[in-house]
Amino acid sequence: MPTEFELIDSYFANSPVNREDVVLGVGDDAAVVQVPEGYQLVAAVDTLVSGVHFFPDVQPDALGHKALAVNLSDFAAMGAVPAWATLALTLPEVDTAWIRRFSHGFEQLAQQYQVQLIGGDTTRGPLTISVQLLGYVPAGHAVRRSGARPGDLIFITGTLGDAGAALAVQQGMLDAGAELRGALSQRLNKPLPRVGAGLALREVAHAMIDISDGLAADLGHILGQSDVGARIDFDRLPVSESLAGLVSQLNDAAQQRGRMQIKDVDGTRPAPWPGYLDFCLAAGDDYELCFIAPADAEDRIISELRKLECPMSVVGEIEAAPGLRARLADGTVVTVQPGGYQHFGNDP
Amino acid sequence: MPTEFELIDSYFANSPVNREDVVLGVGDDAAVVQVPEGYQLVAAVDTLVSGVHFFPDVQPDALGHKALAVNLSDFAAMGAVPAWATLALTLPEVDTAWIRRFSHGFEQLAQQYQVQLIGGDTTRGPLTISVQLLGYVPAGHAVRRSGARPGDLIFITGTLGDAGAALAVQQGMLDAGAELRGALSQRLNKPLPRVGAGLALREVAHAMIDISDGLAADLGHILGQSDVGARIDFDRLPVSESLAGLVSQLNDAAQQRGRMQIKDVDGTRPAPWPGYLDFCLAAGDDYELCFIAPADAEDRIISELRKLECPMSVVGEIEAAPGLRARLADGTVVTVQPGGYQHFGNDP
Repeated sequence: MPTEFELIDSYFANSPVNREDVVLGVGDDAAVVQVPEGYQLVAAVDTLVSGVHFFPDVQPDALGHKALAVNLSDFAAMGAVPAWATLALTLPEVDTAWIRRFSHGFEQLAQQYQVQLIGGDTTRGPLTISVQLLGYVPAGHAVRRSGARPGDLIFITGTLGDAGAALAVQQGMLDAGAELRGALSQRLNKPLPRVGAGLALREVAHAMIDISDGLAADLGHILGQSDVGARIDFDRLPVSESLAGLVSQLNDAAQQRGRMQIKDVDGTRPAPWPGYLDFCLAAGDDYELCFIAPADAEDRIISELRKLECPMSVVGEIEAAPGLRARLADGTVVTVQPGGYQHFGNDP
Repeated sequence: MPTEFELIDSYFANSPVNREDVVLGVGDDAAVVQVPEGYQLVAAVDTLVSGVHFFPDVQPDALGHKALAVNLSDFAAMGAVPAWATLALTLPEVDTAWIRRFSHGFEQLAQQYQVQLIGGDTTRGPLTISVQLLGYVPAGHAVRRSGARPGDLIFITGTLGDAGAALAVQQGMLDAGAELRGALSQRLNKPLPRVGAGLALREVAHAMIDISDGLAADLGHILGQSDVGARIDFDRLPVSESLAGLVSQLNDAAQQRGRMQIKDVDGTRPAPWPGYLDFCLAAGDDYELCFIAPADAEDRIISELRKLECPMSVVGEIEAAPGLRARLADGTVVTVQPGGYQHFGNDP
């Protein structure tokens, strides 16, 4: 069995990306890079665990892609430029074919964003992948979660719920034809981070987050850290044609995956919203951006994102009163909590 | 069960270290820090896996200490200043007492070196800990593995083999009294990185590495990357009083853990060196520094390390001919290879 060092060396040392700012890459005790003058260092880390974040039989190239993509998505949410990555890879065995395909998936995405792998640690153990992404942002210009102000609009890139639906299909809760299944699983297994959009929004967004745990939870982080509340309109949540085509099945599927905890004002009657909303609000892994910007910036945002061919929707508004509220199609207003709903007026 | 976010938030967000150069720490999509002007960024990552790098019943505070210590040791070997860390922690269950003790061990060492935890990802799965350490070095002054030159001396800080002996004690291969057992297991479970020594050696060492896989393998990396060879004197390898006290048992223990592959010139007779050398050369986890410096720097090095109360030994010399040779007590010269010995002249 090759040593850890040889493993990393042979499969990851010859990165197709060779940045001029890398002083010392893979193969010493640590890596050395040059952060450009006037910029601050940005660092994100995300771990994927077999059986928790992905099915053990997932395609290795998709896994390599996703391990980097989830970190690129964090960078998108900061408006930061990705540049360098380290990889902590724990493998049950040395399967060279697997490693080659994993590194291929990782490198293809790395090449797209000119991210160079500068270090890593390959160890034996249960399959776990932890990528640390490093990069930079002009000093003082990182987009935080804490800048949302009452009156600002809430924007979402792309569509929500597809990754959650893909998972439900794989778990046998949803029945989809081959084509639909393929489109959905692409969203779950090979998410496309919105790095370009994040950079384009850096000077206009008051706050930004990527949607990895579902809109309710992630928007909830912005609200909490900005000390504000919000109202979203369920009718305006962007759904893909794939998800729309499954709407008739989504009530049952939502039931199976455990519907949101819901309570009417008298504590008994479930609220009447359709099951697809569970997928938009409380299913993770979409990796779209949720960002907050002033209403008068809407035209500029539309124009910037159009250049990138990045779809965008306005889904609600920041309000001074704490909490996340939602307006249903019938005009009913409910309160939404990360991991569960409660009817408006019944906030414990 | 608290969410990942809440876990990190409650146990790791309130770092006792609050650096002025941290623009944005734990709690956003990524962290933002300011690398000082004129310095380059240094990054190291090391993973510890339960059952592979530590016994599942190890004290959680020792584990928190070691997860950071192994990375600090990499920084020591670069002559770099540690500053910020991220923690990817995969846990089978949310055991708050365990997490509290783990974070206590981590933070105590972090505080000693003024390292601030700026981000992390806590996930559910088999116990795995991956720490990424970030910091800086004056531009162009990182100590690499590639600078050793023929005629340079080979230096070692501290003593070798204690961590390997501690492991052998735990595995029942060595019999040690309570006091000796305690001294040895301290070396294995709570190694003390040589960060100060690494910084003191930055302007004088031609090459440096920390000894994590055993001297033969780690010095071998320096030789390979510097395109040189070396001769070490077995008699000069520094051993602790603890290890010296076990010498009579170490032949048997070395036998049990699988002795080095050894061959005499005729391919049959095992070489006659004592078992303790197996522990010095091929047992890992000592986290001492092996560094290479010109002979005329020896006085300066002695003086610098004395100020730090850091023990130091000269164990050999860099030579032009490739390969690692060793002189035994009886004058015999053998070749040493990472993971095994071969008698001089029998190098395949």
